[in-house]
Amino acid sequence: MATPIEFYFDFSSPYSYLLSEQIEAIATKYGRSVRYKPTLLGAVFKISGMTPLTQVPLKGDYSRRDFERSARFAGIKFTMPDAFPVSTVNVARALVWLQSSGSAKSVPFVHTVLRAYFAHNRNISEPAVLADIASELGIDANAMAAAVQDPAIKDKLKAAVDDSVKRGVFGAPFVFIDGEPFWGNDRLPQMERWLQYGPF
Amino acid sequence: MATPIEFYFDFSSPYSYLLSEQIEAIATKYGRSVRYKPTLLGAVFKISGMTPLTQVPLKGDYSRRDFERSARFAGIKFTMPDAFPVSTVNVARALVWLQSSGSAKSVPFVHTVLRAYFAHNRNISEPAVLADIASELGIDANAMAAAVQDPAIKDKLKAAVDDSVKRGVFGAPFVFIDGEPFWGNDRLPQMERWLQYGPF
Repeated sequence: MATPIEFYFDFSSPYSYLLSEQIEAIATKYGRSVRYKPTLLGAVFKISGMTPLTQVPLKGDYSRRDFERSARFAGIKFTMPDAFPVSTVNVARALVWLQSSGSAKSVPFVHTVLRAYFAHNRNISEPAVLADIASELGIDANAMAAAVQDPAIKDKLKAAVDDSVKRGVFGAPFVFIDGEPFWGNDRLPQMERWLQYGPF
Repeated sequence: MATPIEFYFDFSSPYSYLLSEQIEAIATKYGRSVRYKPTLLGAVFKISGMTPLTQVPLKGDYSRRDFERSARFAGIKFTMPDAFPVSTVNVARALVWLQSSGSAKSVPFVHTVLRAYFAHNRNISEPAVLADIASELGIDANAMAAAVQDPAIKDKLKAAVDDSVKRGVFGAPFVFIDGEPFWGNDRLPQMERWLQYGPF
């Protein structure tokens, strides 16, 4: 069995959303699965000295335009959220909790949260929004709210962020296929060639 | 006649080289021409507060790997230059001089310089290398060396850099098609869709 595609991302990353809507179909086509790995760009940027895209002079204006055009190019519904960027610590912890309990809801949770934020303009940093999403997916919202405050879950997310930095992740989405790093939604054609024909 | 594709670039930008090797064939396919517009990323980065790609922690290592993989993906010969990045003020002035004198050698000069640097590891910041390239192309090397020190040419390049910043150029390559901005070699598929079907 071929190794899974490792998909590092932050819930507040527009390009992560765009790639998340495309990667599974391509993975399936080539007999792979996708493993979603939450990280926190805020923590990562402290190490790389980078600034969030939309806050860089000139680049910020372009990037907002590019999010929308790249979404149209890929045929994906996208609306720039009113609150952007937002803290994704809690939602990332919620995912870590689902994953560490082996829940089959982990992957639907990833997609539902990203769509809530980037297609439906819901502020995913708000506990009430997360509780709603949990309920929609049949996840125990109270258990999730408790997990987000659980020191063991907090530690797991910290370890996940450290792991991402150790792997060289400096932005999102950041994908590894057979150990080969691909940064950005726009590397999808290169990922697909790798999956189809192997290393190049 | 459709408007020309405006191609802002810096001679020290690997992705500018990669796109320069592909853009003209696509332009021709859709009845367009390409206008090469030199800028200086050093000056541009001062305004945007950005750092050269290869000097960002983590991102630097990835980007070197990505230059080479993106070149292989596009079937373009690429060798990371030993001296990188280098000052491109003189070579940009040389291009401004060729363009303002209406020389038919302007476009061949762009390609020959970019290939010298990114395919043949020649240090294009060295006057002797520029003189060699001029001779190879049948350009008067002495006249070019003089032009590079000409205050009128210096002013023209300054004005060109200011113009690029005014247009929102914060990196390279940076392409405008019908006024629509596209940043990066990796936006080529979106450029091609625009050229083929118009705005999307």
